[in-house]
Amino acid sequence: MKSDFNPACPVPLQQYPTVLLAHGGGGRLMHNLLEQVFLPAFGNPLLNCRHDGAVFEADAPRWAFTTDSYVVRPLFFPGGDIGTLAVNGTVNDLAMCGARPLYLSAGFILEEGLPLDTLRRVTESMRAAAAAAGVQIVTGDTKVVDRGKGDGLYINTAGLGRVEHDGTIGPSSVRPGDAILVNGDLGRHGVAILAVREGLAFESSIRSDCAPLVSPVMELLKAGIRVHCLRDLTRGGLAAALVEVAEAAGLTARVEEAAVPISEPVRGACEMLGLDPLYVANEGRFAAWVAAEDAARALDILRRQAPATAPACIGAMETGHGGQVVLRTALGATRLLDLFSGEQLPRIC
Amino acid sequence: MKSDFNPACPVPLQQYPTVLLAHGGGGRLMHNLLEQVFLPAFGNPLLNCRHDGAVFEADAPRWAFTTDSYVVRPLFFPGGDIGTLAVNGTVNDLAMCGARPLYLSAGFILEEGLPLDTLRRVTESMRAAAAAAGVQIVTGDTKVVDRGKGDGLYINTAGLGRVEHDGTIGPSSVRPGDAILVNGDLGRHGVAILAVREGLAFESSIRSDCAPLVSPVMELLKAGIRVHCLRDLTRGGLAAALVEVAEAAGLTARVEEAAVPISEPVRGACEMLGLDPLYVANEGRFAAWVAAEDAARALDILRRQAPATAPACIGAMETGHGGQVVLRTALGATRLLDLFSGEQLPRIC
Repeated sequence: MKSDFNPACPVPLQQYPTVLLAHGGGGRLMHNLLEQVFLPAFGNPLLNCRHDGAVFEADAPRWAFTTDSYVVRPLFFPGGDIGTLAVNGTVNDLAMCGARPLYLSAGFILEEGLPLDTLRRVTESMRAAAAAAGVQIVTGDTKVVDRGKGDGLYINTAGLGRVEHDGTIGPSSVRPGDAILVNGDLGRHGVAILAVREGLAFESSIRSDCAPLVSPVMELLKAGIRVHCLRDLTRGGLAAALVEVAEAAGLTARVEEAAVPISEPVRGACEMLGLDPLYVANEGRFAAWVAAEDAARALDILRRQAPATAPACIGAMETGHGGQVVLRTALGATRLLDLFSGEQLPRIC
Repeated sequence: MKSDFNPACPVPLQQYPTVLLAHGGGGRLMHNLLEQVFLPAFGNPLLNCRHDGAVFEADAPRWAFTTDSYVVRPLFFPGGDIGTLAVNGTVNDLAMCGARPLYLSAGFILEEGLPLDTLRRVTESMRAAAAAAGVQIVTGDTKVVDRGKGDGLYINTAGLGRVEHDGTIGPSSVRPGDAILVNGDLGRHGVAILAVREGLAFESSIRSDCAPLVSPVMELLKAGIRVHCLRDLTRGGLAAALVEVAEAAGLTARVEEAAVPISEPVRGACEMLGLDPLYVANEGRFAAWVAAEDAARALDILRRQAPATAPACIGAMETGHGGQVVLRTALGATRLLDLFSGEQLPRIC
């Protein structure tokens, strides 16, 4: 390497196979990390300016802004990794605002000693996920913490999306009679993570559902479906989304357990692990509260978007005890759902 | 506590003096953390919607977007804490784009076992810093990592600011002849942090310069100063900013060491610690590249903004070897500045 020594780049990155504290120090090594890892993966005109921030044209009157940090363990799992999650999770939060995701920031907290190859795999996943979701990573930051003080790699992404509708999508718009739809079968992400973590045998058959939700949401809006509220079913699963929306809307949600799509492998894994699939996290599933008259058409759109995932209408909202979620079980009994008090599955995203 | 048991809040937060994994689980405890810590500190109409993201009106054609993670150790230091830093650091990155900071996101990565009182102190600092800088925290996220896998508390903030000028502020606008100004004396933040970390005697006399830079930047722009580039002097200090801008502009920066304002206590501490103050991080200082004819007027504005901090013109840009930073020392010799290859002070912000 010494023979083609470049004065603008005195410390080639390949001399350091792992992350050093100096990679976060604002000096030459941080500069090299940017030049040799982040810019090649994410490069675009806004990021390439390499200013303290990205300046963009706001060509719409309303924008959505959101953030999430990602601390999933393990970093790689069937169906994705922390990089796909960091892009899709934030993209999906924007989609849940009825916004078209356009710009992401990426903040990396690296642990000293992290193999640079791991970082490269993760940035490559982020690049691919961003391209698939139609977003650009336009600004970023890297910090390095001492060995033993992180857990390899944490990522924060914040996102900006253009609101392309005139309504208010949120719990305050939910009305009695609204149908509750889900875009597919539940529980894959949580079970896939737990399977790897515990080294379980069904590991290979269950993949995370991690995926961008831009397209189904935009298709619903484009078709004029009266979408009142959207929630992605991440931490806390379907149950948390139902409870939070019912509480915020001051209405009761009535759900048919038999209508909730759960695949046989996930159902079996949950029984074995003692998990309730209604509380297990998803990363490519959402619930939509839509006007009752639009429900059938909305379901058709969701089915065309993802024919294999079994979208379904699982229930409806009604007046009554605000914040209640009433589940009619397969046996005809009713059960009230509440938020989990403990923690089923830590570090799931 | 049991006698006034509230069904909407079955697990009062005060029963848990420290952060549990379940505080990041999407269930009732996370809900309580939001209700009892974050909303009281940050509450505003956008955040209170508690949707997956905040929808705002983009009442200007151009916006700036930026992010930073904060991993400073210790969490509290003379002149600030991780919370003031997390607000001012991102606010300042927006100001360096010539943008008025308006909205912040806040992503918390908490270590299991963190005292909730520590989290409350930090959120209170963030609240006060946001109010002082004129920004609102409009969306957020909390994750909890296992005991031993974090370092108490990491914070990411992303920020949005309205661009209130028509120009391009960045290295590409820098011209030969541009004056280089700094808004005050250098090195306080890095020395203050190191003093606490090492338990040094001058600890009490040197406070971090952590402060929002919105007002001086907006005043320069309002006065019609031809501001070509702005850089806050954080990691890597003045030297890194000079090198990066000189490299990106393809020009040489010529700087008079004697003109660089450094207080006697900081100079003494740096000598004792073997630090070069030109490379030490600041959190309330920036360099401005302005048209030569505007330099005196710009300096007047900076002095009126902060009379006690000794703003100064430290040099000028010229054609020549692109990317060179030539420092004329007090003795009349010249020295080339480059980015640091190692790491003077890890975990400084």
